[in-house]
Amino acid sequence: MISFALFGAGRIGQVHAYNLKASHKGCLKYVIDVNGPAATELAGSLGAKAVSSEIGLADPEVEAVIIASATNTHAELIRASAKARKAIFCEKPLDTDVARSRAALDEVEQNGVPFFLAFNRRFDPEYGALSRALASGVIGKPELILITSRDPEPPPQEYLLSSGSIFRHMTVHEIDVFRWLTGEEPVEVYATGSSFVYPELSHGPDTAVVTLKSSSGVIGVINNVLRSSFGYDQRLEVQGERGMLQVQNRESSKLVVADRSGVRSAGPQNSFIERFAEAYKTELDVFISNLCSGSNMQPDGHDGLRASLIAECAERAYQTGTSVSVPDSDDFSSSSRTVVLDG
Amino acid sequence: MISFALFGAGRIGQVHAYNLKASHKGCLKYVIDVNGPAATELAGSLGAKAVSSEIGLADPEVEAVIIASATNTHAELIRASAKARKAIFCEKPLDTDVARSRAALDEVEQNGVPFFLAFNRRFDPEYGALSRALASGVIGKPELILITSRDPEPPPQEYLLSSGSIFRHMTVHEIDVFRWLTGEEPVEVYATGSSFVYPELSHGPDTAVVTLKSSSGVIGVINNVLRSSFGYDQRLEVQGERGMLQVQNRESSKLVVADRSGVRSAGPQNSFIERFAEAYKTELDVFISNLCSGSNMQPDGHDGLRASLIAECAERAYQTGTSVSVPDSDDFSSSSRTVVLDG
Amino acid sequence: MISFALFGAGRIGQVHAYNLKASHKGCLKYVIDVNGPAATELAGSLGAKAVSSEIGLADPEVEAVIIASATNTHAELIRASAKARKAIFCEKPLDTDVARSRAALDEVEQNGVPFFLAFNRRFDPEYGALSRALASGVIGKPELILITSRDPEPPPQEYLLSSGSIFRHMTVHEIDVFRWLTGEEPVEVYATGSSFVYPELSHGPDTAVVTLKSSSGVIGVINNVLRSSFGYDQRLEVQGERGMLQVQNRESSKLVVADRSGVRSAGPQNSFIERFAEAYKTELDVFISNLCSGSNMQPDGHDGLRASLIAECAERAYQTGTSVSVPDSDDFSSSSRTVVLDG
Amino acid sequence: MISFALFGAGRIGQVHAYNLKASHKGCLKYVIDVNGPAATELAGSLGAKAVSSEIGLADPEVEAVIIASATNTHAELIRASAKARKAIFCEKPLDTDVARSRAALDEVEQNGVPFFLAFNRRFDPEYGALSRALASGVIGKPELILITSRDPEPPPQEYLLSSGSIFRHMTVHEIDVFRWLTGEEPVEVYATGSSFVYPELSHGPDTAVVTLKSSSGVIGVINNVLRSSFGYDQRLEVQGERGMLQVQNRESSKLVVADRSGVRSAGPQNSFIERFAEAYKTELDVFISNLCSGSNMQPDGHDGLRASLIAECAERAYQTGTSVSVPDSDDFSSSSRTVVLDG
Repeated sequence: MISFALFGAGRIGQVHAYNLKASHKGCLKYVIDVNGPAATELAGSLGAKAVSSEIGLADPEVEAVIIASATNTHAELIRASAKARKAIFCEKPLDTDVARSRAALDEVEQNGVPFFLAFNRRFDPEYGALSRALASGVIGKPELILITSRDPEPPPQEYLLSSGSIFRHMTVHEIDVFRWLTGEEPVEVYATGSSFVYPELSHGPDTAVVTLKSSSGVIGVINNVLRSSFGYDQRLEVQGERGMLQVQNRESSKLVVADRSGVRSAGPQNSFIERFAEAYKTELDVFISNLCSGSNMQPDGHDGLRASLIAECAERAYQTGTSVSVPDSDDFSSSSRTVVLDG
Repeated sequence: MISFALFGAGRIGQVHAYNLKASHKGCLKYVIDVNGPAATELAGSLGAKAVSSEIGLADPEVEAVIIASATNTHAELIRASAKARKAIFCEKPLDTDVARSRAALDEVEQNGVPFFLAFNRRFDPEYGALSRALASGVIGKPELILITSRDPEPPPQEYLLSSGSIFRHMTVHEIDVFRWLTGEEPVEVYATGSSFVYPELSHGPDTAVVTLKSSSGVIGVINNVLRSSFGYDQRLEVQGERGMLQVQNRESSKLVVADRSGVRSAGPQNSFIERFAEAYKTELDVFISNLCSGSNMQPDGHDGLRASLIAECAERAYQTGTSVSVPDSDDFSSSSRTVVLDG
Repeated sequence: MISFALFGAGRIGQVHAYNLKASHKGCLKYVIDVNGPAATELAGSLGAKAVSSEIGLADPEVEAVIIASATNTHAELIRASAKARKAIFCEKPLDTDVARSRAALDEVEQNGVPFFLAFNRRFDPEYGALSRALASGVIGKPELILITSRDPEPPPQEYLLSSGSIFRHMTVHEIDVFRWLTGEEPVEVYATGSSFVYPELSHGPDTAVVTLKSSSGVIGVINNVLRSSFGYDQRLEVQGERGMLQVQNRESSKLVVADRSGVRSAGPQNSFIERFAEAYKTELDVFISNLCSGSNMQPDGHDGLRASLIAECAERAYQTGTSVSVPDSDDFSSSSRTVVLDG
Repeated sequence: MISFALFGAGRIGQVHAYNLKASHKGCLKYVIDVNGPAATELAGSLGAKAVSSEIGLADPEVEAVIIASATNTHAELIRASAKARKAIFCEKPLDTDVARSRAALDEVEQNGVPFFLAFNRRFDPEYGALSRALASGVIGKPELILITSRDPEPPPQEYLLSSGSIFRHMTVHEIDVFRWLTGEEPVEVYATGSSFVYPELSHGPDTAVVTLKSSSGVIGVINNVLRSSFGYDQRLEVQGERGMLQVQNRESSKLVVADRSGVRSAGPQNSFIERFAEAYKTELDVFISNLCSGSNMQPDGHDGLRASLIAECAERAYQTGTSVSVPDSDDFSSSSRTVVLDG
């Protein structure tokens, strides 16, 4: 039984807390959130305690932490948890700031703590089935990958103001999907977009298309929309040399109504909580299993850093209207760093 | 170039007339219809002449006739055409009256004229694909066949009053599909039904279910509805020992609209004219080819007679609430005739 | 917290046991099974005790029982539990024997214990959505209901020998669906079927079609197959005066593979455990809620009795080749009893 | 009856010739092709004559021409036909060379002859349904348009060497779809791509993605693949402020096979001839109707020129890795001409 502290009592924190309760292999000891009442309520309903970060991390019984707080707090909490020698399960993405993320991961490395970056799509049964089919060679080499990820409703403006551009808080996940499916690094990135939902905001587009090209020439096209209006639209398509693989949306119902006006069926499930429920369970199970067996974590900090870096390249491409070459290295002392990251 | 006379200038007669024009192998010389203006108009638009039945059949240049008039005139026209030694392409079903049909087919046999009964579904590309898949053995032996055939809108009451019960004018086609797919004779028939559309009419149900059982035990379930409300609903399903075959409806459009209220797509094509357009072309081509090559016609008069006979058994089953054994023989002098046919 | 004893440590017993554990409102105290090791194992993994029926029912702390043992033991356990004044959650169907079932329900009534018959389909989200759509009037009055229920693989011969005919152990569930959707009683039943899987067994058909007609004329068609070969095939279709409602299968995966040989997608989920997972949770929640609030149980013993009675009528119809009138009353001292039930 | 001369006796020329024959409003007098036997054969089967271009255009009875020859001959034939005062129905795209196309259209204008550029997708029933749905406002303003156009099999290398890059012979059609659906001009274009099919050829990519942005911010994403392997993959998706519209592929069959290995259905129709059969008929009907009524042709030479110009911008973007601003004007004496067109 591994003892956990949880940072973040919001929606995704609650998902992890309840999955932990059901998992039989871990138990939740502490809930930590700047929103005290939220922490207290969640802790109360699960037999845990709401405490401060300091108390939570100081307890030697706590072996692992789940970081599910606001994205721009991730780096700081990673660093603190690493110093306290806790194994880390960190919600995606790494942080809104790549430099900060890198520094935090240095701390992780120095302390030798296991670090897991919870890119949930890698653990979804549907995406997993596509990944396995691709690996089986049924369509040969992948050549063109189309990823659709659209939120049903736009987040509040405040969220957008703190979360960085759409590339950093949304596209970053699809970038990881591209890396995971191809096993290759994107070398060239382009982005375009428009602001339809909050045109007055200057934080960047809310409808964005990012194209990627990998070292072997695989083309990726990611489209992100903040307001699909008809549900949480998550689709995946891989065109290969001998055919095509697709993951289509899961409908929220199998009821079909046919009448004079046509045939009506249900739209996709309406939220990430529902759509990726199994993925959230599986990723936590995998984290705990790896922890118990001492296996390497995957995806890890490097994966998180690469995805964030490529997201920054997309942002830069969007700003300049030019495709951007992705630096080979996570080491940003290289010259490409200045080119790419000070945008 | 085979010269044709056409009986019937209505909807289905027009379909055959235009298909004949496009076929390059036949030409339409005469149109014959009790509705003079209709005959004249159709003939005029196709370079044919509207004439009386006598004139049409007396012309030795006419090698073949298409009988596409009202069902209860089929037997009489078959007889006259056979006497005039014309090859006969006859619209399904044979006639509303089995005894009359049998007598007409006797005339066909005595005169040795080719006779083709145009059960269109046998020539539909979708139904044909299912039939070939079944023959290929992919699902093994057929065990359960479900046939859905529903008209979009009920016909006028007058039509119903002259066409016989739903079993005779509608189910008869699905009975042929069952015989064709299984290559077996139904031996036992049951029917139930209700009157929802014209409850005041006594001509029988407008919503009917007929179950069949073949000699080897294949179960057939036919459901017929006069008013599907959402289009011409034509589906086929065969459950076999190793799997299932289905022919689903052809949508009238591939447009999909997804919004807050769900996902809307188009219903099935709305009429038999549209749904079976290719079948009408193919069946006429097959008739002409067989005529030219001297091949046997299929389906033939025997197929028409069996289907009508089984439809009468269904009607009897409906009336008595008892399953009815289908007589082996088309020869109705046998005792089973009295049991089955005087209902 | 309501304390439960569970009869039956098999597959469905385990489902209820784990759902009970997760429900927060009930707790499992005893597991009772003639298979001692199975009872011990399940009890052990859930913090319960494996005991005898006598001990379980004698404990006054136990407020409710779940009967999930072999169907032909239901009546006896209902009677014993009723005498012990336990609330009863009973797996469908009631029992293989109607007379025994009726006697057991008399005991329930005399002791005034709450009784819930767990027809799971009533609690499935998809079937529920169809039921609500029907009630909303979107397609008007239902006219024709088609229910497909096919098991992926046939059960072992031993099961079939003890479970009664397919009408009693399988069709009975779809009969309940028909009653539930229409809110009407079937008045006339017909059945046909064939034996393809175990042709040497005399226990009745393994491929069966039952047609029902309700008092207002709604036609029902149920098809049951013991071996669909491609998954657990559960579909529902209601044709109404203004359109059609359908519940289609839930695919076991949303992966689609398109290549030269066509488009391949996944079959339906493969077992009732998976397909009706939510229904099993919901029905237990409803039982507990009703228990706490003192609300009437639904479906209840009457529902179970009617479904079993109609299943017997279907069996009789199958044997006689005649449609069978369903007796109005559960009271089998009426004359219809002798007609229907001594088959 | 309008008399036509047809340039090009290849596949698409044959389609137009047979549609003309069936249309009742036009008749084919001449077939002109450098491949003499092909011209003779097609002419023979349609009651036309195979002649030289000079003879065909000199005949004053010929009122209209259909240009269906190799793309790089279009400009020359347009010019000659315009000089001969023939109304022109020209296959898409305009020509592989924009400057040549412009000069030819100048000739058209000077001679005042009707000119129709046959972008077939505008006349497809499915694409038309989407266009009308969009215009109806059901999803509000379009925001993101995804167009998939993939050929089943790559053309021979010789074709590729003469047809210009994929942007000029393939993407150009989807560019027209974007302009048609939005009623707006793309102002910014980016392109990426890879060579998987014929990597040794230097004519450009065979797997390409082009992103467009219109003046009001509508984003377009076009993906083109020369070898989809599973059929002619033609899909359209429009994400708008209140929902999504899609045109999905037409399956080549509605047969579904379900067995232990899953569910198999048919891929899309396999060729443009089959998929756009109705569009080819309709576009010719529209051309003839407009000719008879004196209505303006649409799409016209301007539409052809814009699409070709934007395709060239895409090619330039592909070569430079930079997004390219599309010149406002077709007048290439402007400075933007040099920027865009000398690549």
